[in-house]
This record gives sequence, structure tokens and C-alpha cells, in this order.
Amino acid sequence: MATHYYYETIENLKIVSLDVKDVRFPTSLGLHGSDAMHRDPDFSCAYVTIRLASGTTGNGFTFTCGRGNEIVVAAIKSLSFLVVGATVVDIYKDFAAFSRSLTNETQLRWLGPEKGVTHLATAAILNALWDLWAKLLKKPVWRLLVDLPPEQLVSTIDFKYIKDVITKEEAIEILRKAQDKKEERIKKITADGYPAYTSQNGWIGYSKETLIELTEKYNDLGFNHFKIKVGLNLDDDIRRLKIVRNIIGWDKKLSIDANQVWDVEEAIPWVKKLAGFKLTWVEEPTSPDDILGHATISKELNPLGIGVASGEMCSNKVLFKEFLLTDAIQYVQVDPARLAGINEILAVYLMAHKKGVKVVPHGGALGLGEMIQHLQIWDYVSLSGTTEDRYVEYIDLQHEHFVNPVSVKNGRYEVPTTPGYSTTLKDDSILKYEYPVGTEWESMFSKGLFHDPRKAPSRRTSAIKL
Amino acid sequence: MATHYYYETIENLKIVSLDVKDVRFPTSLGLHGSDAMHRDPDFSCAYVTIRLASGTTGNGFTFTCGRGNEIVVAAIKSLSFLVVGATVVDIYKDFAAFSRSLTNETQLRWLGPEKGVTHLATAAILNALWDLWAKLLKKPVWRLLVDLPPEQLVSTIDFKYIKDVITKEEAIEILRKAQDKKEERIKKITADGYPAYTSQNGWIGYSKETLIELTEKYNDLGFNHFKIKVGLNLDDDIRRLKIVRNIIGWDKKLSIDANQVWDVEEAIPWVKKLAGFKLTWVEEPTSPDDILGHATISKELNPLGIGVASGEMCSNKVLFKEFLLTDAIQYVQVDPARLAGINEILAVYLMAHKKGVKVVPHGGALGLGEMIQHLQIWDYVSLSGTTEDRYVEYIDLQHEHFVNPVSVKNGRYEVPTTPGYSTTLKDDSILKYEYPVGTEWESMFSKGLFHDPRKAPSRRTSAIKL
Repeated sequence: MATHYYYETIENLKIVSLDVKDVRFPTSLGLHGSDAMHRDPDFSCAYVTIRLASGTTGNGFTFTCGRGNEIVVAAIKSLSFLVVGATVVDIYKDFAAFSRSLTNETQLRWLGPEKGVTHLATAAILNALWDLWAKLLKKPVWRLLVDLPPEQLVSTIDFKYIKDVITKEEAIEILRKAQDKKEERIKKITADGYPAYTSQNGWIGYSKETLIELTEKYNDLGFNHFKIKVGLNLDDDIRRLKIVRNIIGWDKKLSIDANQVWDVEEAIPWVKKLAGFKLTWVEEPTSPDDILGHATISKELNPLGIGVASGEMCSNKVLFKEFLLTDAIQYVQVDPARLAGINEILAVYLMAHKKGVKVVPHGGALGLGEMIQHLQIWDYVSLSGTTEDRYVEYIDLQHEHFVNPVSVKNGRYEVPTTPGYSTTLKDDSILKYEYPVGTEWESMFSKGLFHDPRKAPSRRTSAIKL
Repeated sequence: MATHYYYETIENLKIVSLDVKDVRFPTSLGLHGSDAMHRDPDFSCAYVTIRLASGTTGNGFTFTCGRGNEIVVAAIKSLSFLVVGATVVDIYKDFAAFSRSLTNETQLRWLGPEKGVTHLATAAILNALWDLWAKLLKKPVWRLLVDLPPEQLVSTIDFKYIKDVITKEEAIEILRKAQDKKEERIKKITADGYPAYTSQNGWIGYSKETLIELTEKYNDLGFNHFKIKVGLNLDDDIRRLKIVRNIIGWDKKLSIDANQVWDVEEAIPWVKKLAGFKLTWVEEPTSPDDILGHATISKELNPLGIGVASGEMCSNKVLFKEFLLTDAIQYVQVDPARLAGINEILAVYLMAHKKGVKVVPHGGALGLGEMIQHLQIWDYVSLSGTTEDRYVEYIDLQHEHFVNPVSVKNGRYEVPTTPGYSTTLKDDSILKYEYPVGTEWESMFSKGLFHDPRKAPSRRTSAIKL
């Protein structure tokens, strides 16, 4: 199947190395990325480079909030024996089986299965393999996805545990039906771009001045949908939503994100008190594992015109299946660095499509926007055929570190044209921000801005008061 | 609160170190522990020693199947900064807040939250703190749990995200009601022991001869409930169940364990074909995350007298809440090395009690039986007041490595009397089985029985065919 895709010799297509680096950016210094539960994140990634005998490389990563990035790096190293030595022709021929060899390794699976650190590590590896595949074919990933015949695209998906909602045959049938007028949609999305929404203005640690300044900035830049972090203090939330509505008016969309801060019975009255601000969705109102809790919240809030969104911490396709079967969420926020690569993400898109629920992937951090633009463009061209009430999240952080960063104009993402998954970091950025040896980190340690982890751990006796 | 429990000075009660060791046993050589999904486990643990200034130590661990144990070790090291330097009086005074400082650390929580590697690591640390607490009070853990006044026992539980099923006040009320005739029940359980069931005879990789030999052995030893692994081949399952029923007769109980091998629509007809063997429960028929799937299976199988059991891979109390709210399982198999210590386990017991569902904890591996005997004895004395259709799982592996191993007579667990959580390994066992430096491992590497991980990783190009 599809060996005609390759211009390399078989010998050259063997994976000779998998390298992983701990790369961290000190975003906590400016409270960028702060929310009700993650008050001081240092946006970071475990960054994988897979190299072929030919020298061609693929890059992929998973995102973390800083501390613990070293654990994911360790997990990637532990999984690498399943990758190095394989020939990519064999991988792409039955990519579902390969992804399952990572998610279901007979001893390692106990550590999940398919969740937490090991699943994040799997995401980084599979993302690198998708980047590599697209680079071998000299296409951006969205175009690779669009060009793969339905049978072959579906062959990348492991249907284990989801066949009661969607089968392989149904998935192929859905994609076949959507092939019609594909080229027209490619032309249209290339001309118009894909609608973005921004959460850059609304980090919870930002001052009133910063909130005003950034909301005005993105409003002027043509964004039509804004999201702010809420959930620490109701009066503060009201004050900040007033500021945003004053600037953007009442025709543009506004959403809120609680990042799991509430119990179910706290979430409902809190959000009802904010309903007057005409909210599009409330994101992560409670535990990401509380399916029935989200269903209860949806039942209470949907009649007020407020949707419920969740997914950036939803572990895997099985849990997404539960959310979809219980009508628990109206916006599926799949995370490209948490699920097991595009393989598992496609499963979620297809289940959501079948259940008539919109996918709006999570892109609120380092490099996630670079990835999800490909997914939404594919969805528009090859699955849903619409951008109605769908978005690619936009934040303005760390794009400068990528070789092929996103480009957003008039509140819309431009369609990427360079080969790959847009996941390659600049060499210079790695030299500066590899943790803890990068030049910027050495400088910040010497200035006392951060504790050097190579020294004795700091005793935080205050930990129990957190 | 309860400072009278301590006989040490405050200075002596400061935690001065947290040490962690990677300890593995080569069980795969005999296919001990093998099932439909974990065909070759090497029962292992990430073993924590917490030391006070006084020199008193507490031991705790989490269980793994071998590969990946090093990732959990890395995670424990990453969490240790939250522990070292704290004074245990402060910890036990508000143990819920302390447990939450581990499960909800503002940056590390992204890696879960409360699931996978970081939650396993948290389990090991909290287990060590419970062992330490009991040792300081010179009591076995079950007795510590029984003796703590309801308010104080409940103060160890973090009720975040479960208040819609049980509140702190309800939990206290439930425990208060169960205080009556506690001393009588202690006498009774000490005299009679707690009923065990065994899965030692039924590992899927065992030969027919071994199945017969071990079933006869445990039948003669007075066990009244047996469990065998199933799910790879229906004819094999029928053959093996016939062998077991022939030996144990039809009055004793028999259960089966599929270890997640089926999709929902495969599980139901498969188990129905085995219903003639008079099965007590089918364990893990499908994905541990598929709550609604378990509910569907329960609806189909309960009318045949077959219960559904799950929990050894259920990530946390929120997911247990979902299982309980959907009547998805009739046996809650909470795992003492996967949840965040006794703190979170108590939350699951209390929710299950309120919903009228039995807890039969997972003890099918290294050291888990040592822990769960304490939990079930506490449940009998202080919560449910009954041992009816409740068990402590028994397998006969690795008890010889523990300083205070379980003691099972006539198919019943004897009540432990030594201080602590029975979680302390013998020094000699650590010297032999620490991975990869232990003397037994060095010997096995030199014999070529295992690949030495300090050498270049073995290239498993066959991985994609798994």
C-alpha cells in the first residue's frame, strides 16, 4: 500500500536514532499562561527528533507546564526501543498497529494504560513520525491527511475499544462521502484562512492594564472570539468580563475557562451568574474525568445558550467516547500533545462527527497552535466541510522559536505550506532553552530567578500549605 | 489534633530524606502473573523509604510490571521536594491538604492530573507516610485506621470532585454509626481471619499440569473462591474452567479475569458462553476507562448471576465515582498502589458503601496483598461490618521478600499484628533484586536470561508486529 509515496531507498528509511531534549521557557516570570489551577506555568516541551539513515528527520513534542518535563523525557527514552531500528515503510503501512505497539506494550501499559506520562511520551513520538512522513512526501501534514485515500487514512487508527461508536467501515464511508468538492474547499480555505479565537488576553495573572491592552490589540487585529480565565473569585470574573465586553461589544463571541477549579455543584451557580455576558462556552468547569458531572452542567447551562467545552486533559479516545455518549460536552477540545498522535486524534474527530459534536482543539500553549491548524484545516476539507462555530485557538507565545511558525492575519490562520507538522524548533532556541543546560537557563540561575535543579533540591516545608 | 499520638520530639519528626529504589523480580521466566494483556510481567516496585531525623523510617511502594519502573522512580524523585523538610505532625494534622499538594502541584498536575505515572509515584510516597504513621504509633495500619476517631480519619480524605456523591459530614456520620460493637468485630476477625480468594492457580501462561496441581493445592488448603485468567481463546477458557470446576466442585466460587482484552460487543457473547460455569464475577471485561461499556456489560450479565468487577487500573476517585453512579460494576477493585494512598482509597470505600457496592481490592501481585489485608479488616471493623462476598485476593508470589509477610491459613488471612503497613522489604532482597545492579540481576544478565539495560538498547524491529 502506497509504497509509491517514497522516493528514498528502503535502506535509507530505517530509523537510526531517537533523540529527546528537555526544553523549557520561563513563562512564569510574566504569569503568561496562568489560570485558576496552573498559576505559574513554565511552558515546556519534551522534544523528539527521529532520524533516518538518509539523514531526514522528523520532530514531535509533548507539552508540559515545566516541573515534571524530565519525567516525560525519561518515558520517551524508555519507549524508544520500540522505535529505533524500525523502517518507516513498515510503520506507515500499518500505523495503527505501530501506535498500538507503543500504547499497549505488555509491561509498560500498566503505567497507564493510555494516559498520563506514558501517553504524553507516546504523543511526542507519534507526532515526530507524522512530521517525518509529511516531510518525506514534501507536504504539510494537513495536505498529507487530505491526500491519503480514506482507506489509508483510516488504517492509521486503532479502533480498539471504540467499535461500539464507530467502526473502521463507517469511518471509511464517512470520509468517502466528504471527498466531493474537496479541491474547492482547499482553494477557499487557502484564500480565506481558518477562523482563530484568542485566549492571549485573558490569563488570570494579568493586570487590568494588560487585560485592556491585549483585548484592544486583538480586537483591532480582527479577532471575533475571545476567552478569559475565570474561577478564582466571582467578583473578579464579573469585573474582567465587563472590561472585555466593553471593548469587543456584544456581537463578537466570548468564552470562559475555569481549568477544572470547581466541583459540579459550584460550577453551575457560578456560571449562571456570568450568563449575562453572553458566553459561547465554559471550558473545563470541573474534573476532566467527571463525565457525568459535565453532563449535569451541560443540562443546566445549555438552555442559557452556554456550551460546555473540555478535552485538553481528556486522556484518550475511550474517555472522549464517554463524553460523547452522555452529551456531556458541546465542544471537543482534543489536545495534539496528549493523545497518541494524529492516529488517536482522527478517532476522536470521527466519533465527534458521527455524534454531531464540534471539535475545537486545544492550542493554548507552546507549539500546540502550530499542530492544530493542520487538524482543523483537514477537518474542513475532508470531514465536516464547515468552519461554522469552529476555531483554531491562538496565543501569542513562543512562535518565534519555531522554524515554521503559524501566521495569523485578520483573526484567521493562514494555511501552512511548508512540509511537515510545523513542529521543528530552531537550533538556536534549543541552545538557549534546553533545561537546565541552555544558555538562557544558566543566566537565569546565576541571576537567582530560578533554582538550579542540579544543586540540592530546595526544601519546601510550605508545600503542605499549598 | 491528636498530637498526643506522638512520642517523638518535634525536631525528631522532621523528614530528612526520601530514598527510592527500582526493585524487580524476574517473574516472566515462569510466566507467573501472565494474563491476556500482560503476557510476560516482571513484578516490580518503585520502593520508597522516608526517614525522620529520629531515624524512624516508613516504606511504601507502587507496583509495576517491569519495564517503565524506572519512569515511576524518576517521578518519585521529581515529587520528593514536596516531602523532604516537612514535619510529619503537620502532614498528619491535615493529611488531605498534604495529599492534595502532591496530586495538584501547579506544574506537575499537567502530567495527569491524578492518573498514570505521577499518580503511581504519589501512591508510593503516601503509602510510605501511612506506614511511617503506624510505625510511630506502634500499630498495624488497620488498627491505626480503626482507632482514629471518625473526624480525624475523614480529615485525611480530599473530597474535591466527589462532594456530589459524598460530603465530609456524611462520611463522618457513616463512620460514627459503625463504631458500635467495634471491639466485638475486632475479636471476631482476629479469631476467624478474613476470607481470601486466590488467582494463583489461574495465570494464563500456566500449563494444564500446573493449573491442575495448583487448583488442587489451594482447594486442599481450604480456599473457597478461585479466579482464572481468560480471554485469549474461548475453547481454552472452556477447557480450563472445566478443569477447575472438576476439582473444586460446584459449591465453591469461581470467577474469571479478562484483563481488558475485549471490546464491549465481544465481551458479552464470550462471557455468556461461559455462564454455565456458575461465575461469581467477570473482571476487567474491557477498557478500564469505559464506564458506559461496563454498565452495558453489567446489564447483560447480571441477570445470569454474573457480577462485573473492575478497578485495578481505575485511575482515581473521580472515575470510581462514575462507575458507581452508572451501576457499571458490582465489585470495586481498588488498587492500593495506584490510588493516592489510603487517603484516596478511603474515599472510594465510603462512596461504594453509600451506593451499596462491595469493595474487593486488587491484590494480584507483589506486595499488594500485604497492603489490602489492612484495608479489608478496617472495612469489616469500621465500615461495612461484614465479610459477606468480600475477599482479600491471595497470590503466592514474593511474600518471602517482606519483613512482615501475609499469613493465610485455611483460606483466610490472619490479622496482622506488627506495626506499619506490611510494606517493608528485606534488605537482602533489595541487594539481590535492585534493578539493574542487584546480584541476582547481574547473574541473570551474565547468563543471557535478560538484556542488560546499561548496554545499548536492543533493536526490536519486530515491535510493530506485536
